[in-house]
Amino acid sequence: MARYTRHSLTSILNATPSRSFAPRLYRSAINPAISKRLYSQTTLQEPDQPVINTSVPGPISQAKLKDLDQLQDTRAALFAADYTRSVGNYIADADGNLLLDLYAQIASIPLGYNSPTILKASQSEEMLVALANRPSLGVLPPQDWADKLRNTFMSVAPKGLDQIFTAMCGSCANETAYKAAFMHLRAKQRGTDKFTPEEEASCMRNIGPGSPDLAILSFKGGFHGRLFGSLSSTRSKAIHKLDIPAFNWPSAPFPTLRYPLDKYASENQAEEARCLEETEKILKEWRDRLAAVIIEPIQSEGGDRHASVNYFREIRRLAKDNDVLFIVDEVQTGAGASGKFWAHEHWDLETPPDMVTFSKKMQAAGFYHTSKLRPPHPMRNFNTWLGDPVRTIQAQALIKAIKEDNLLEQVQTVGKYLLGHLQPLGVRYHRIIQNVRGIGTLLAFDCPTTELRNELLTILRNEGVNMGGAGDRSVRFRPMLTLEKKHVNIFLTRLESALNKMYQKHWP
Amino acid sequence: MARYTRHSLTSILNATPSRSFAPRLYRSAINPAISKRLYSQTTLQEPDQPVINTSVPGPISQAKLKDLDQLQDTRAALFAADYTRSVGNYIADADGNLLLDLYAQIASIPLGYNSPTILKASQSEEMLVALANRPSLGVLPPQDWADKLRNTFMSVAPKGLDQIFTAMCGSCANETAYKAAFMHLRAKQRGTDKFTPEEEASCMRNIGPGSPDLAILSFKGGFHGRLFGSLSSTRSKAIHKLDIPAFNWPSAPFPTLRYPLDKYASENQAEEARCLEETEKILKEWRDRLAAVIIEPIQSEGGDRHASVNYFREIRRLAKDNDVLFIVDEVQTGAGASGKFWAHEHWDLETPPDMVTFSKKMQAAGFYHTSKLRPPHPMRNFNTWLGDPVRTIQAQALIKAIKEDNLLEQVQTVGKYLLGHLQPLGVRYHRIIQNVRGIGTLLAFDCPTTELRNELLTILRNEGVNMGGAGDRSVRFRPMLTLEKKHVNIFLTRLESALNKMYQKHWP
Repeated sequence: MARYTRHSLTSILNATPSRSFAPRLYRSAINPAISKRLYSQTTLQEPDQPVINTSVPGPISQAKLKDLDQLQDTRAALFAADYTRSVGNYIADADGNLLLDLYAQIASIPLGYNSPTILKASQSEEMLVALANRPSLGVLPPQDWADKLRNTFMSVAPKGLDQIFTAMCGSCANETAYKAAFMHLRAKQRGTDKFTPEEEASCMRNIGPGSPDLAILSFKGGFHGRLFGSLSSTRSKAIHKLDIPAFNWPSAPFPTLRYPLDKYASENQAEEARCLEETEKILKEWRDRLAAVIIEPIQSEGGDRHASVNYFREIRRLAKDNDVLFIVDEVQTGAGASGKFWAHEHWDLETPPDMVTFSKKMQAAGFYHTSKLRPPHPMRNFNTWLGDPVRTIQAQALIKAIKEDNLLEQVQTVGKYLLGHLQPLGVRYHRIIQNVRGIGTLLAFDCPTTELRNELLTILRNEGVNMGGAGDRSVRFRPMLTLEKKHVNIFLTRLESALNKMYQKHWP
Repeated sequence: MARYTRHSLTSILNATPSRSFAPRLYRSAINPAISKRLYSQTTLQEPDQPVINTSVPGPISQAKLKDLDQLQDTRAALFAADYTRSVGNYIADADGNLLLDLYAQIASIPLGYNSPTILKASQSEEMLVALANRPSLGVLPPQDWADKLRNTFMSVAPKGLDQIFTAMCGSCANETAYKAAFMHLRAKQRGTDKFTPEEEASCMRNIGPGSPDLAILSFKGGFHGRLFGSLSSTRSKAIHKLDIPAFNWPSAPFPTLRYPLDKYASENQAEEARCLEETEKILKEWRDRLAAVIIEPIQSEGGDRHASVNYFREIRRLAKDNDVLFIVDEVQTGAGASGKFWAHEHWDLETPPDMVTFSKKMQAAGFYHTSKLRPPHPMRNFNTWLGDPVRTIQAQALIKAIKEDNLLEQVQTVGKYLLGHLQPLGVRYHRIIQNVRGIGTLLAFDCPTTELRNELLTILRNEGVNMGGAGDRSVRFRPMLTLEKKHVNIFLTRLESALNKMYQKHWP
């Protein structure tokens, strides 16, 4: 980051970026007097191309981050964003750059920046009431809460799940799902609704039998959040877990597939068989202590690792045969990005999951479950807010848009188009692009090293494309559901330019 | 709950409550065509008195809750609220009742329902941008985020704390504070920024040294949340903890004071001395394994248990002397309800806390800390959203209102007034009202039994006053900061009526 004097910092902070970059329609929208009228008329328009005036992060971004760093850790920040001028698939920064964003705030923006759909929902009267009167949903639910749940979460409920527990983020969605699993297992083991005096006394000392030594089974490479329970099931990277106390919970191997899949069909089948066998062994070994097994349809933070439909169907069967609840973590894969609303729909399961957790793109968080998972006593899985009607209203608008605008179909089409063009690049630029893979727009490829991956991401940003890493050396696509072929074309051009630069540098 | 046929359920759900109860100004506001214009002009006005047309919960509430119960557990719900018609210190329900609310959504509504201040902030352009573009704050912070933090959290930062970690709820505020404490302790023990290969490997298996067996010390009766880490430090009630795996963390005794305080001065001093001695013993015993001690200024969920200023000063001193971080959990007591912005300001500490956590009334959540608690590596204490600009904008409006409207002074005055009138009731109705206590409007009293406490709360609701319990047999005041003497007078009349009914029934 550039050095600067106190004086220059102030002048940079107060500087207005050049607006010359913006195409006409867009320029009209970035009038400093952006008004609600403007938003409601959705005059913000995507530019035809990314616009890059400075390096990314530019001098204003760097000064802003340096300033922010006095109050908060900014070491992970890429640049200072300007959300008032971001639009659709493009994110604006403080220096007046406008990047095509294929990462969407770690997979959490569903319909693009300043989406007319979300803006409209955000200006509704019900939104205003929700903002000004945040309820304790378990104690004083709004009178229309059942309708709201039906119009929102239940209208896209995974098959077989008729209950919804609302929460606030992916970590707490998973942790409250774990709590439901533990209470269910103990109730089953206990065979009665009554707790013993010993249970009541021991739990106050954090020891058994009241605080039982039970476990959740997760998979190596899996990521389920970073609070204490969810982190105990997260097995992505050491840096996520170091120094934090963890429960003694088991982990099973997750298959490492080789690409292209058709070339390595038999090896991959053997690898999945090996993992399934090992998983079955762990399930039997831990039997009476395991409340649930949790799995992601795509291990995302862990490096976009995939497995076959058959593998997931077998995991579901193993959980059922061993009488362990089966939780699908759709925090990153849910809400349409796989081309189906829920990624696990691709598995066509005979027995539905017992719980499905969600957050991110869905805007609201929580988990679906079957009614058998409602605890025998009230106020067991409980907290002050139990979710947020504000984000529920946005989820409702999102779900409506997904249906009305056929976004699942669009994701399938655009995803296939992108995958189809990435695969040949994996041949032409095989020193950098490897193992192209994915479903819907949840696509990824590997680079041979962490360094080359990070170099590619940095060059891409300076070419006007914002993307994210995954695992040690993968590049992850997590665009909005509104990504179109035209954006893919823009991306591919910029990617090729970045790859050529890297080839010239490393393999001249 | 009343039985009903499918037909009658539908008709009840569609029924419109009578509006005859509303005083004139209020009636004008409950026009079904409530519009944004209406909100912006803040024509919603408090009634002169609570309005009770039906039992609480009334038939419509009961039907709504029964309907909701098909999708979510409603066993803890009191009634179905109508937030479009709630105003100031009054909450409306689905049956057209209007209750004086002294509980404020478990202490989380700061300025009253449909507060003009919050409504105005919720309609601003920056709110719209925040709603439509939820950022991953650690990766792509908005360019004005430093200014926003300064204008909001830092403008009321507890003395000595210059860093802010933003989060989303009280549980995750506490858990991320714990994570910061664990990382700090391990970095100190390690004496270098480099992790060993053994640490990196072992943490992936959830065992030491990478996943260290470290602990947080909390107090018996304390409540710090209900996720896995926070719940391990929560020691309020068995029902909060049963069946959930917990870390082997210690707990220290918290003083049980006798009231009135002046009568039992020497007993209470001895009780606090006993607790301090025991706490010191635990601190020494657990020394190398303790990362932090966490304490609430008032044990709220635990039954509104207080201790003296001297006690808290001694706890702070003990933490410092034993080289353990000192965390003050202000999730329930922060943002003004004690008559100071932070309740721990009443202690006038020489050495500030190392961390102060907040949520609830503040609207936004997180923790303040000193810069030494920033971990040596980036992305250690991290998640997708890291807070919420939407709630930050509301916090900014709240903080401004607290200052401009002298709400801290008002809380002090009104709280003293309420306390002064409760104390004589504790003499006249000593069979029900005992141990009247508190500070600011964080007041409470005990009933002799859980049953009598619950009966009182039910009768009070039917008298038009909504309040909450705490612990096994306490009644808790957690009103908005905008409570006035006129509301206290209304409450006192209704309380006396409830007490007379109970006396007539139990001691005729």
